[in-house]
Amino acid sequence: MKLSKVKVRRPAKNSAKHLHDAQNTRDHRELRIDKVGVRGLRFPIQVRDKAHAVQNTVATIGLFVDLPKEFKGTHMSRFIEVLNAHGNVIHVENIGEILRELQAKLHSATSHLEMEFPYFMVKQAPVSGRAGVMDYTARFDAAACGHEIDFMLTVKANVTTLCPCSKAIARYGAHNQRGEVTVQLRFRKPIWIEDLIGMIESSASSELYALLKRQDEKAVTERAYENPVFVEDLVRNVALKLNAHPEVRWYRVEAENFESIHNHNAYASIEKNRASAR
Amino acid sequence: MKLSKVKVRRPAKNSAKHLHDAQNTRDHRELRIDKVGVRGLRFPIQVRDKAHAVQNTVATIGLFVDLPKEFKGTHMSRFIEVLNAHGNVIHVENIGEILRELQAKLHSATSHLEMEFPYFMVKQAPVSGRAGVMDYTARFDAAACGHEIDFMLTVKANVTTLCPCSKAIARYGAHNQRGEVTVQLRFRKPIWIEDLIGMIESSASSELYALLKRQDEKAVTERAYENPVFVEDLVRNVALKLNAHPEVRWYRVEAENFESIHNHNAYASIEKNRASAR
Amino acid sequence: MKLSKVKVRRPAKNSAKHLHDAQNTRDHRELRIDKVGVRGLRFPIQVRDKAHAVQNTVATIGLFVDLPKEFKGTHMSRFIEVLNAHGNVIHVENIGEILRELQAKLHSATSHLEMEFPYFMVKQAPVSGRAGVMDYTARFDAAACGHEIDFMLTVKANVTTLCPCSKAIARYGAHNQRGEVTVQLRFRKPIWIEDLIGMIESSASSELYALLKRQDEKAVTERAYENPVFVEDLVRNVALKLNAHPEVRWYRVEAENFESIHNHNAYASIEKNRASAR
Amino acid sequence: MKLSKVKVRRPAKNSAKHLHDAQNTRDHRELRIDKVGVRGLRFPIQVRDKAHAVQNTVATIGLFVDLPKEFKGTHMSRFIEVLNAHGNVIHVENIGEILRELQAKLHSATSHLEMEFPYFMVKQAPVSGRAGVMDYTARFDAAACGHEIDFMLTVKANVTTLCPCSKAIARYGAHNQRGEVTVQLRFRKPIWIEDLIGMIESSASSELYALLKRQDEKAVTERAYENPVFVEDLVRNVALKLNAHPEVRWYRVEAENFESIHNHNAYASIEKNRASAR
Repeated sequence: MKLSKVKVRRPAKNSAKHLHDAQNTRDHRELRIDKVGVRGLRFPIQVRDKAHAVQNTVATIGLFVDLPKEFKGTHMSRFIEVLNAHGNVIHVENIGEILRELQAKLHSATSHLEMEFPYFMVKQAPVSGRAGVMDYTARFDAAACGHEIDFMLTVKANVTTLCPCSKAIARYGAHNQRGEVTVQLRFRKPIWIEDLIGMIESSASSELYALLKRQDEKAVTERAYENPVFVEDLVRNVALKLNAHPEVRWYRVEAENFESIHNHNAYASIEKNRASAR
Repeated sequence: MKLSKVKVRRPAKNSAKHLHDAQNTRDHRELRIDKVGVRGLRFPIQVRDKAHAVQNTVATIGLFVDLPKEFKGTHMSRFIEVLNAHGNVIHVENIGEILRELQAKLHSATSHLEMEFPYFMVKQAPVSGRAGVMDYTARFDAAACGHEIDFMLTVKANVTTLCPCSKAIARYGAHNQRGEVTVQLRFRKPIWIEDLIGMIESSASSELYALLKRQDEKAVTERAYENPVFVEDLVRNVALKLNAHPEVRWYRVEAENFESIHNHNAYASIEKNRASAR
Repeated sequence: MKLSKVKVRRPAKNSAKHLHDAQNTRDHRELRIDKVGVRGLRFPIQVRDKAHAVQNTVATIGLFVDLPKEFKGTHMSRFIEVLNAHGNVIHVENIGEILRELQAKLHSATSHLEMEFPYFMVKQAPVSGRAGVMDYTARFDAAACGHEIDFMLTVKANVTTLCPCSKAIARYGAHNQRGEVTVQLRFRKPIWIEDLIGMIESSASSELYALLKRQDEKAVTERAYENPVFVEDLVRNVALKLNAHPEVRWYRVEAENFESIHNHNAYASIEKNRASAR
Repeated sequence: MKLSKVKVRRPAKNSAKHLHDAQNTRDHRELRIDKVGVRGLRFPIQVRDKAHAVQNTVATIGLFVDLPKEFKGTHMSRFIEVLNAHGNVIHVENIGEILRELQAKLHSATSHLEMEFPYFMVKQAPVSGRAGVMDYTARFDAAACGHEIDFMLTVKANVTTLCPCSKAIARYGAHNQRGEVTVQLRFRKPIWIEDLIGMIESSASSELYALLKRQDEKAVTERAYENPVFVEDLVRNVALKLNAHPEVRWYRVEAENFESIHNHNAYASIEKNRASAR
């Protein structure tokens, strides 16, 4: 399934040169388009690990450029050509190349890439030490404007949250549940996905595991009971760590608890340097 | 937004009679089609309550018939016409009419209806008595074959499950989570959605609520701790109640726990009169 | 299923007054929370039509407030109480009341409401005049900050798009597909959902219908072929209409074509007064 | 991210042997559970290609066994252990090993595996020969009952469908759209996913491509116009090919068109050897 192995057939006579280029005609509506391109493209990729290995996964990708008001349309096939030319090893540091190629091939002032993918880490159970594969979700949103590049990293990690109120008022037990934490951030120097996951997991009542033996389940249950957090505590705990990190320029932290006693969710969010209270 | 209020314009001269009817041409592949029709239609409906009121909700609907091997295609617009002619009050007892109309209007031996919709019940908190609206999901799958009608009711209700193992081995606390129970059943005489919800909710560690004050949260937390259930217990508890119900002919019970200590779910199912162990 | 009909039981002795209020304890992390509340609440509502009728539908609702840095947690049950007290008739003009009540009951500087719901319109086929119910998606995002209210209306409408390039270069036919248009806007005076849908549908190759007889299908097919639009044309056509509308203060228009010749989508967006080209 | 590289910590003294085994207690409800296990597990896998290469992708996995009526619960961690022990190269021929291991480790009569994953193929554009990566969805549902194994392969492939009725009645053009074809089958000897995709794609108005230059788009547009198919034609065309295939024992073919002129879908299905017309 290697693109490089595919022998390209000789273009037929019926080539594109003889065909009308509707996209290139002059547009008169005088409206620049901010973003135009392709979205929802599933693509196998390799991402670089903190452990200096590469990890195989599948991304859902979007690629966009701006379109000046003079032109009727963009050339959609070129987005795919840029992606193909690049190869499938994609990581924080070479995304700039894709953005530059989009600007060059599509003659645009700006270009955008969005990609979301499952990210895996092997994790050991807390007592037995048994290893299992944990899944997370990561996302890159990158944009080039002229020579400048804006990069936003998003990581979603699920955790256990145990309700402090429930623990305080009940004679025994406390409701707890799976919660999803989403951190979006901009950094000065790249931060590893693994490090961000660590900040999230250490902010909850407990982290999750793929594989827990009975002695592990005992430890995890007790740890969660000893560390109750509201959804508010969870976002504050993560925000404190991000505030203390020298490379973080901006962040938004969101947490959503799939409450075990309700059919709706509890939600909280904090954004760094939020301009207004809107 | 009443269909009945819409004045129908006089059909233009350019009527369907002069147009080729591709669907009616003879097909030579000698293959009968089991089901053909429309799917994914959002439609506002009214459903009858146990409290003899009607409840407004929104259904996602599919309507199908079989197609004999002689015909190339069915007439898709007639499905919508049957639905429109029927009006939007839909309940267990009048679904037979829709199925009969589909058979008549589309000259088919069989007809099928599928519809899924949120279903609401007001529920009081266990101590404060405060009322809130709880949401469930209901689904009808009905089929007419000649004069016979097969009707399957599905209800999905979310509940709290607290892990008996975690409770037994931990010094304090026990992991618990939201779980989803799905019951599909065929009955002799109609069973109310409300009664089925009752059977599900009384089989879990606790039922869920929309509104809980602190004294309610205390009661719900303690009740769950006192009634630990594995996902296996949950499906068995529901199955026992369905076995004891005189009007239930067949059922499948499924439960899926959104585990608070794992990022995957625990699942169990029991089907009545399962032919094989496949 | 009326909340008003539910008789409230007398509170038991075990009342909330004797229970520890963990939420009200002093927090020392010095971090204000921007938004905290409930999300993913399905709720039956009535929305006001342009035709001065009310329409029954089902919303998925989120309600949030800010939390000053001094407090450990918010009181989640009060969000549901405000929603219950309000009743289920919700429209653009009375959303301010809900926001004010959230601010008052939760002692907050800001409050937020998000709600998304299917919205229905009866539409007549273009030639036969036959009526059918079309479904759209509407969304309100409203926020109160002190006395000021920010309201954003979102409407999603699906349309037909026929590719101008494909039409220009092929000897016959042209690929076309279902496309989804999303318009978000802020207005000076309220704009009806119906009017916004009209602006979207008239900007595409054709609008969609629930019910089309053969003569209608002929008309719709020909109309789409006569009005080819790129995804770029679609967002520009809508943007032109919004620019011309005296009550529109801000908008973002997005279109996504579920391409019939690709397994990925074509996407374009324009935002009014976009500060930067990011 | 290799499981094999993880050094296992020495088990702590607090080992599982001293902990109560709630799952192993005697159950008295006299109800056998058909399936119990884990579901919704995201896991990186390698699948074998027809081209004798391996393809990296990400699966969502479920693993289940039956539970005799005597036992209260199953041991959830063992499912993960079987998956880990197996390694991540999974293909049609070694799934039997996983099923056998589940039966052995969980002392069950039956075991089940479900896994769904994106599957990729490089495809060349019809005229320019330019290569692009097309994505499909594949699924394995396998069950062991004693020594017998039942294996069902599912493949989902998207295609172009152009409406024969619309073409016949309109002066020019014809509505077309993306359609999704789902084939489930049981075979005598394994059939390659690639071959099944080929049968689906050759049954539609046109196949889809990731990358099309203008001359390709012309060819694809004209080919679709020359090969109109109803959703009924599509399932019949696929069924004819499956009927002619010597290794196919059973199949169900479903097609769903995301109609470009409606907001609902057209659907058809054929099942081989359908017992009744229900």
